[in-house]
Amino acid sequence: MQLTRALFGRPLRPSEAAKEQINPVEGLSALSLDALTSVAYGPQALLVALGAGGLAALGLAPWITLAIVALLVLLVASYTQVISAYPGGGGAYAVARANLGTGLSLVAGAALIVDYVLTVAVSIAAGVGSLTSAFSPLVPYTLPICLGMLAVITFLNLRGLAEGARAFLVPTLAFIAAILVVIGVGLIHPLAPHLTAPGAPLVATHTLETVGVLLVLQAFAAGCSALTGVEAIANGVPLFRRPQVTRARQTELMLGTLLAVMLLGLALLIQRFHVEPRTGDAVLNQIVGYALGRGWAFDGISILVTLVLALAANTSFGSLPVLASLLAKDNRLPHGFAIRGDRLVFNRGIWALALLATILLAATGGDTDSLIPLFAIGVFTGFTLAQAGMVRHWLRERSQGWWWRCGINGLGGVASGIATLIFVASKFREGAWVVVVAIPLLILLFVRISTYYRRLAAEIHLGQRPSRPTPGSTTVVVPFTQLSRLTSLALSQALSMGDHVVAVTVEFPEDQGARAELEAAWAQWDPGVPLVILPSPYHSVVRPLLRYIGSLKPSAAHRVVVLIPVVLPRRFWHQALHNHLDLVLSAALRRHRNVLVARLSIPLRRE
Amino acid sequence: MQLTRALFGRPLRPSEAAKEQINPVEGLSALSLDALTSVAYGPQALLVALGAGGLAALGLAPWITLAIVALLVLLVASYTQVISAYPGGGGAYAVARANLGTGLSLVAGAALIVDYVLTVAVSIAAGVGSLTSAFSPLVPYTLPICLGMLAVITFLNLRGLAEGARAFLVPTLAFIAAILVVIGVGLIHPLAPHLTAPGAPLVATHTLETVGVLLVLQAFAAGCSALTGVEAIANGVPLFRRPQVTRARQTELMLGTLLAVMLLGLALLIQRFHVEPRTGDAVLNQIVGYALGRGWAFDGISILVTLVLALAANTSFGSLPVLASLLAKDNRLPHGFAIRGDRLVFNRGIWALALLATILLAATGGDTDSLIPLFAIGVFTGFTLAQAGMVRHWLRERSQGWWWRCGINGLGGVASGIATLIFVASKFREGAWVVVVAIPLLILLFVRISTYYRRLAAEIHLGQRPSRPTPGSTTVVVPFTQLSRLTSLALSQALSMGDHVVAVTVEFPEDQGARAELEAAWAQWDPGVPLVILPSPYHSVVRPLLRYIGSLKPSAAHRVVVLIPVVLPRRFWHQALHNHLDLVLSAALRRHRNVLVARLSIPLRRE
Repeated sequence: MQLTRALFGRPLRPSEAAKEQINPVEGLSALSLDALTSVAYGPQALLVALGAGGLAALGLAPWITLAIVALLVLLVASYTQVISAYPGGGGAYAVARANLGTGLSLVAGAALIVDYVLTVAVSIAAGVGSLTSAFSPLVPYTLPICLGMLAVITFLNLRGLAEGARAFLVPTLAFIAAILVVIGVGLIHPLAPHLTAPGAPLVATHTLETVGVLLVLQAFAAGCSALTGVEAIANGVPLFRRPQVTRARQTELMLGTLLAVMLLGLALLIQRFHVEPRTGDAVLNQIVGYALGRGWAFDGISILVTLVLALAANTSFGSLPVLASLLAKDNRLPHGFAIRGDRLVFNRGIWALALLATILLAATGGDTDSLIPLFAIGVFTGFTLAQAGMVRHWLRERSQGWWWRCGINGLGGVASGIATLIFVASKFREGAWVVVVAIPLLILLFVRISTYYRRLAAEIHLGQRPSRPTPGSTTVVVPFTQLSRLTSLALSQALSMGDHVVAVTVEFPEDQGARAELEAAWAQWDPGVPLVILPSPYHSVVRPLLRYIGSLKPSAAHRVVVLIPVVLPRRFWHQALHNHLDLVLSAALRRHRNVLVARLSIPLRRE
Repeated sequence: MQLTRALFGRPLRPSEAAKEQINPVEGLSALSLDALTSVAYGPQALLVALGAGGLAALGLAPWITLAIVALLVLLVASYTQVISAYPGGGGAYAVARANLGTGLSLVAGAALIVDYVLTVAVSIAAGVGSLTSAFSPLVPYTLPICLGMLAVITFLNLRGLAEGARAFLVPTLAFIAAILVVIGVGLIHPLAPHLTAPGAPLVATHTLETVGVLLVLQAFAAGCSALTGVEAIANGVPLFRRPQVTRARQTELMLGTLLAVMLLGLALLIQRFHVEPRTGDAVLNQIVGYALGRGWAFDGISILVTLVLALAANTSFGSLPVLASLLAKDNRLPHGFAIRGDRLVFNRGIWALALLATILLAATGGDTDSLIPLFAIGVFTGFTLAQAGMVRHWLRERSQGWWWRCGINGLGGVASGIATLIFVASKFREGAWVVVVAIPLLILLFVRISTYYRRLAAEIHLGQRPSRPTPGSTTVVVPFTQLSRLTSLALSQALSMGDHVVAVTVEFPEDQGARAELEAAWAQWDPGVPLVILPSPYHSVVRPLLRYIGSLKPSAAHRVVVLIPVVLPRRFWHQALHNHLDLVLSAALRRHRNVLVARLSIPLRRE
C-alpha cells in the first residue's frame, strides 16, 4: 500500500478532480497528439498511393489534400456539434447510441476500442522505428524499447491524466512550432538549390495515360490517415475542466485549424520542392531538408518527430478508459471499468489498454509495417457512424439551420464511409481482416456481458425489496493439527460465533498410536468442546475434512462455519514456511452455498 | 479438480503404496540411470585430462580406471552398509546427521541438493546436446527442447515414481545390453582394420618426459565423474517395495557390478583400439564404431545414449524429494516438503527440483559445457561425508570386522575427499565457484528456517496444554451496495453468528440524493438490523469500510466478523464481471488479529 502510494501519488478527493482536469492547451497534448503527428505519415501515404500512377499523377496531390482538408473541416464541424450534444464523452458511441440504436452503437464502440489499441501500438512502433533507424545498434531491442515506452506512458496515466498531459505539453508545442516554422521558412525562402534527397524514387516509371478514379480514391483514403485522432477530443470531454463543453470545443477548433494549416502548408511545399516518395527518406524529412537544410535543425526536428510519435500513444489513454466506463455503465463491459481509482482515473481501462497494446506489439515484434494496414479502419467506421448519427439528430431536432448542418454531416458521412470501404478493400489481405474479425467478436462480447448482467439482476432480485432475514443455527468447525495457543484462541472465537462448536483433527495411518494420547490430553484440558478425530485413508487433510463437513448436512437454516486459526508471520516470506490450509479449504469449499470459511489471523510478535 | 485427476491419476491410499513402490530392476531405471549413463562421459573426461600429458600418458588410462573401479567398490560397499544402517533414506545426510553432528549433516544436505539440481540440468542438456548435434536444424530450439523434456519428466514423477520407473525401464535395459554387447564383441572380435575416427586428436603433441603426480590426480578426478549417481539408491530407500533394505542393497550391488564391468570393459577396448580423445567424436562413439562398425547399430546406440542421458535426470526426481522431506521433518526446510500428495509422492520436492533446474537451464541456455564444471563437486562432498560418517559409525559400534570395514570407508573417504579438492581447485574459475557459494547459502537457509520454527513453536506454545477457551462477543458487519436477495441471505447468516449485526453501505459523493431514498426503503423493509451509511470522500469502498471497522474497536474479547455475500457465477470466466470485494477486504484485513472476513457464497442456478 505504501509502495502504491509512492508510485502513483496520494489518493485524491473528487473535489480535487479539477486539479486532475485539463485546459484546452493541455487538451492538445493529452487528446490530440495522435491527430497532430499524423502529418508525419499522412502526406507520405498519399504520395506513395499516387506514385503508382507515375510522376504526372503526383500533380494531383494538392487537390486531393484540399479534399482531405475539406473532410477535416466537415469532421471538426461535426465533432464540435457532438461535443455540445453529448458532453458525457464517448464520441461516436454516444452519438450512435442516441440516434442509431443499440446495434450500431455497439459497432461504433467496438470500432473505437480496436482503433485505440491500434493507435497505441502504431504510435509506439513508429516512434521506436524512427529511433532505431537513427541508431541502428538498437534494432534488436525494438520490442523491449516499445514495451518500456508503453510502461512509462501507462504509469503516467495511472498517476492521473493531468500529469500525463503536462509531461507531454512541451514536446507537443515544440512539434507544432517546428512544423509551422518549416512551412513558413519553406514558403518564404528563395527556392533552395535542388538538393537530391537520398534513396530511390518510389514512383512508377510508366506514366499512365489517364489517372483512374480508383487511384484517386485510393490516394484519398491513404491521405485520410492524416485525420485519425480527430475524434479523440469528443470522446474525452469529461476530462476537461469546467465548462467542459466550451473548453473541449476550443480544443477541437484549435486542432482542426492547426491540422488544416499543417496539411495545406506541407502540400504546397511538396509541390514547390517537387518532393517524390523515396525509399529510406520520409516525405516529412525531405521537406524539412529542403526548407532548413540538413544541419542541426534537421536533426533536432527528426528527434522531436520520433518523440511525439511515440507520445501520440497517450491519446488513446485519454479516450479508451472513458469509453470503457460508458460501456460498463451500459452493462456492455465488466462494471469494474466504471470504477475510478484513488487517482480518479479509470484504472482498469488503462490496464486493459496497456495489456492489449502489449499483446499487439509482441505479436508483431513492434514492426510498424505489420500494424499500419490494421489502422484507420476503426476510426473511419467511427467517423461514419458519428456523422450518420448526427444526420438523424438534425432530422429529429430540426433546429435552426438544420438542413445545411445535416447536409454537411451527410457529406462527411458519405466521404468517411467511402474511405472506410476503400481501406477495408485495399488492405484486407495485408492485415485488415484482423479488424474485420475483431469488431464482431467485441460486439458479441458486449452482448453476452449485458445478457449476463440482466440475468444476474433478475436472479438476485437486484433493487427489489428482499424477504426479511431469518436467523438459523450455525455450527463452527475448528480444524487443528497439534494442541497450541492457536487452538485455544480459535475455540474462544468459535464459541462466540456458533450454537455448536466442534474441534476436528485428521489422523494419518502412520500415527494411529497418538489417538489415545490426544484424547487423554483433550479430556484433561476439558475446553468444553467435543473433539472429533477423522481417520484419513489418503495422505490428505482436505478430503476427510470435506467429508466431515458434508456429514453435518449444511443447509440454509443450518450453516457450517469453518474457522481456521492462521499464524501471520512477521515477514511475508515466512509465509512459505506455513501450510495454507485456509486457502486450500477456501478454494475447495467455494461452491458450497452453506459453508463459510473464516480465517482467524494470529500475528506473531515482532522481535 | 477433475483436471488434476485426469492428468495425475486418481488419489491413492497408503495401502496402495506398494503399487507405487519399486523392485530392484525398476530401481536401476528409477535411481541408477545417472550412474549408468556416466560411462558415456566418464572415460572421455579421463582421456582428455591424460591427453594433456601427451600420447605416452594415455597408457596410464587402464591403471587409473582400475583405481576408479576400486573407489567404486569402496563406495558400493559403503553405501550397502549405509542402506542397512539408515533405511529411512537420505544417504550422506542421514549418515552425517547420525555420526558427524548437525553442522556436517547440513553440509551434506546442501551438497546433495546442489548436485541433484545439477544432475537434472546436466543430463537433460547432454541428452538434448547429442540430439541437436545429430539434427543441427534443432540447435536454435535447444532451450525449449530442454524445458519440454524437463516438463515431461516432472509430469511423470508427479503421477508417481513407479510410472516413471516403468516408463524408463525399457531404454535403461536396452542401454545396458548395448554397452555389454559392444564390450563383448569388441574384446572377442578379431581386431578390426584400424579405421580413422573423424575429428582432430585432442592429445598434446609434446610428450612430457615424466608424467606428474598432479596430472594423474587430475585424470583420476575427471574419471571419477563416472561415479556420480552411485549414492542415489541409498538416498531413495523408502521408494522400494518391502523388504526395502534387501531390495535396495540388491539394486546397489547390481549397479556396482554393471558399472564396474562397463568401466573396465571400456578401458580395455580403449587400449585395444588405441582410442584417443578427439574433437567432434565422443570416446564412446569411437569405441562403438571400432567394435560394431559405423552402420545401423552405431546409429541405434547413438540415439539410445541420447535418450538415456536425458532420462538420467529422473534419478534426481527419485532422490531429492525424499531428502527434502527428511530435511523438512528436521525443520530444515518448509514443512510442506514432508507432505505426500494424492499420488503419495512428495509433490513440492518435485516442483522445487523442476523449478530450480528450469532456472539453471535458462541461465545457461541449455549448454552442457557451462554446466559440467559445476557438476560432481556436490556428489563427492556427499561421498566424503558419508564415508567419514561410516568411519565414526564403525568406531562407535565396534561390531565384528569393524576395523577392516572402517579401513575401507576411511580409504574411500580419503580418495573421495582428494577428488573433491581437485574438482574445486581445477574447475573453480570455470563455474565451480557457483557451487562453493551455493552450498553455504543453502546451509544458511536451513539454519534460518529451523530458527524460525523453533521460535514459532515457543510462541504458540506448540504441544503444550493451552489456556481454556473463553467466548467473547462478536459484531458482524455486512457490507452491501444495492438491496437484493444477497443482502437478505447475508443478514440471515449474520444474525445467526453474532450478538450484534450491522449492515453497511458506502455513499459516493455523486449519489448523495440516494441517501434518503435508501433510508426510507430500509425503514420500510425493517430487517431488524441497523443500517450505517458511510460517506466516502474518496472513490474507494475499502477505505471507509476499514475506518468503520476500526471505529468498532475490535479486541480479543470483542471480535468483528465482516460477512460478505458473494455471487458465485456458473462459469469461472464470469468472475471477471464481478467486483471481488471479499478478496480486497481479506487482503486489507489480513494483519488485523481481531477482524475476521467470511465469504457467503451464493451460487447462481444453472441455466
